Amino acid sequence: MQSATSVDEQRLLKVIFIDGLQSKYPYIWLLDNCLCSQCYIHSANQRRLLFSQLDFQAAPESVAITPDGANLTVTWSKEHSGDYTADWLRTHQFDSSKPDEMGEPQLNIWGAEMVTKIPMFDFNDVMNNDAELFKWLDSLNTSGLALIKNVPQKVGQNERIANRVSYLRPTNYGIVFTVKSKIDATNAAYTTARLGLHTDLPYFDHTPGVQMLHCIQQCEGDGGDSEFADGFKAALQLKNENPEAFKILSTTWMDFFDIGTDYYPYHLHRQAKTICLGRNGNVERVSHSQIGRSAMMRIPVEQVEAVYKALKAFDDILHHKDNIIKFKMESGDMVTFNNTRVLHGRSAFKIGQKGSRHLEGGYIDWDEIRSKLRVLKANANGD
Amino acid sequence: MQSATSVDEQRLLKVIFIDGLQSKYPYIWLLDNCLCSQCYIHSANQRRLLFSQLDFQAAPESVAITPDGANLTVTWSKEHSGDYTADWLRTHQFDSSKPDEMGEPQLNIWGAEMVTKIPMFDFNDVMNNDAELFKWLDSLNTSGLALIKNVPQKVGQNERIANRVSYLRPTNYGIVFTVKSKIDATNAAYTTARLGLHTDLPYFDHTPGVQMLHCIQQCEGDGGDSEFADGFKAALQLKNENPEAFKILSTTWMDFFDIGTDYYPYHLHRQAKTICLGRNGNVERVSHSQIGRSAMMRIPVEQVEAVYKALKAFDDILHHKDNIIKFKMESGDMVTFNNTRVLHGRSAFKIGQKGSRHLEGGYIDWDEIRSKLRVLKANANGD
Repeated sequence: MQSATSVDEQRLLKVIFIDGLQSKYPYIWLLDNCLCSQCYIHSANQRRLLFSQLDFQAAPESVAITPDGANLTVTWSKEHSGDYTADWLRTHQFDSSKPDEMGEPQLNIWGAEMVTKIPMFDFNDVMNNDAELFKWLDSLNTSGLALIKNVPQKVGQNERIANRVSYLRPTNYGIVFTVKSKIDATNAAYTTARLGLHTDLPYFDHTPGVQMLHCIQQCEGDGGDSEFADGFKAALQLKNENPEAFKILSTTWMDFFDIGTDYYPYHLHRQAKTICLGRNGNVERVSHSQIGRSAMMRIPVEQVEAVYKALKAFDDILHHKDNIIKFKMESGDMVTFNNTRVLHGRSAFKIGQKGSRHLEGGYIDWDEIRSKLRVLKANANGD
Repeated sequence: MQSATSVDEQRLLKVIFIDGLQSKYPYIWLLDNCLCSQCYIHSANQRRLLFSQLDFQAAPESVAITPDGANLTVTWSKEHSGDYTADWLRTHQFDSSKPDEMGEPQLNIWGAEMVTKIPMFDFNDVMNNDAELFKWLDSLNTSGLALIKNVPQKVGQNERIANRVSYLRPTNYGIVFTVKSKIDATNAAYTTARLGLHTDLPYFDHTPGVQMLHCIQQCEGDGGDSEFADGFKAALQLKNENPEAFKILSTTWMDFFDIGTDYYPYHLHRQAKTICLGRNGNVERVSHSQIGRSAMMRIPVEQVEAVYKALKAFDDILHHKDNIIKFKMESGDMVTFNNTRVLHGRSAFKIGQKGSRHLEGGYIDWDEIRSKLRVLKANANGD
């Protein structure tokens, strides 16, 4: 810092950094974020100061910068002063346009060309190499789809990989779920039928963030291909081609539900918009599922056909050859994808003589993935 | 049903029920929700029909009602007809005002008078009696606060209770977390200091829905009182008393964060509005934490002081004697509360000679609680 000047009439401190950048820091904010041991618990990186203890009238008695410009001391009273480093002040300057790097990543929007470009990782690398772990999670954050190869062909690998990040997210289908054809299937996934492109568990308010599907044993012969499409690309295309349908799907609350008994008896139900927009009008989340959509529609009957037509327009775009990618997972592959963005499906298959197609699935949530990305990045940067 | 009439020009079926109620059902919706075994997997309560198989031109060849009026058969073609019961059609009539009973419950908004009215339950009843389990969860849904008495004074009881509903929600603090004063505390909760009213884990996009705090051993002497306030009441009061502050808190995105190492190394970060409004302008969620609020504020510097003043107005209302309730949990009590609505805190305490104050905490999420409420209610009604 070159200088720090109190401006009492505006109740803020003006700081000029070494390179000439000027920034303002309100007194109340400096007080609230005082890092002295009376105000802050350093072991917890959390405030000790109660909100009610904040003095809205306080102003600095004096401010002083160290000769090297690296530290600012603000003295509030004989009993209370606090230090702020130039780096910290610079990181925390006020600017409404500053993005959350991990939470609002630069997106890689993709179509059918993705089939030859799917980010691929090796199981042992992801398990043992933090740089590869970071790259895998970063691919999920930006592209929403990644493949892990050479995963041991036995159950329990979802947990091993999830534990590299955080933990598995349990659901009504268990800590992990087994995708095999079953008699009296409790979910369409547990049949041999084709599944259209869908997002999983839209009947959760807290829909799982990332899905992992580990192919322990692939089926013989034709069928059982995995299919994926980028829901964000499809939504943007719908907005261009059919703005009325886009408007309907981004404003109509649809009901989703799931009733049955698996890990325990459940009756899940929630409403979500097919295309959920974020605060800047960007597409933030997609919820689309022929499997999980309820017959209940809390809309006027006159709007029903228009909603179906809008859903059809979106579903057609998703399944268009320019948008859908298809490939057959090999035994030992694990596909991982952003369940709030990328829709997945599969073609029908037959149960062969060597036994059934066997996938094991699990979920990890975005809070934990982005936390791990930040931890790994901080480690890489050494701060 | 008295009658069912196809109206091809509007592509819908008009049904008149026994009591004279008239309802309309679009053809496309009837097709989409056909319960015949070709269209529907009954064991999964899910569609077999793919969205792309929906015929937007189809119209019934004929419709027929059974003599008792209980069943409607719609014949689409020689190969395809489906049955719909009167009850099912009635339940699924179109009406935009139909609420989700469990997801949008009638709220009991409370202030300081709550201290003598906290819904109380006995541990053994909750563990063994489904009616009591329902009442406990219903109290959480409507009042947001309930106390369970006579919980065994040893660890592991959060899990036993959570398993009555679904499962514990893990976090970076573990499957359960231990609230004891600790050297080098990783969270302000793990000190002996007073904690102002706050919501837990606001730095999760998926903030835990319900918190359980089991008092295994209370501290001796003064201090360690639990404090609670209804954030929905405080928000409504703020709206009346200080509409400008309400507007600021319901539109300004605040940053929350948590950095440290506990169950594993974490760096959680997300933005949330202090007062989050639902689609009808109702208060849907409250996120307020002096502990978890970040120094990072992605707003113009000119707005900072007004945001702090608005936070102070809200914090003052929360801590006002008319709104806050205080009581000291006894060893063997478990307090449970809606973490997206009810703020909690505690007074400072001292470590006594008989050992430390010891609480064990855990979380359950609303998706799972509301699922259980629906399951229990269906069982009670026999359907």
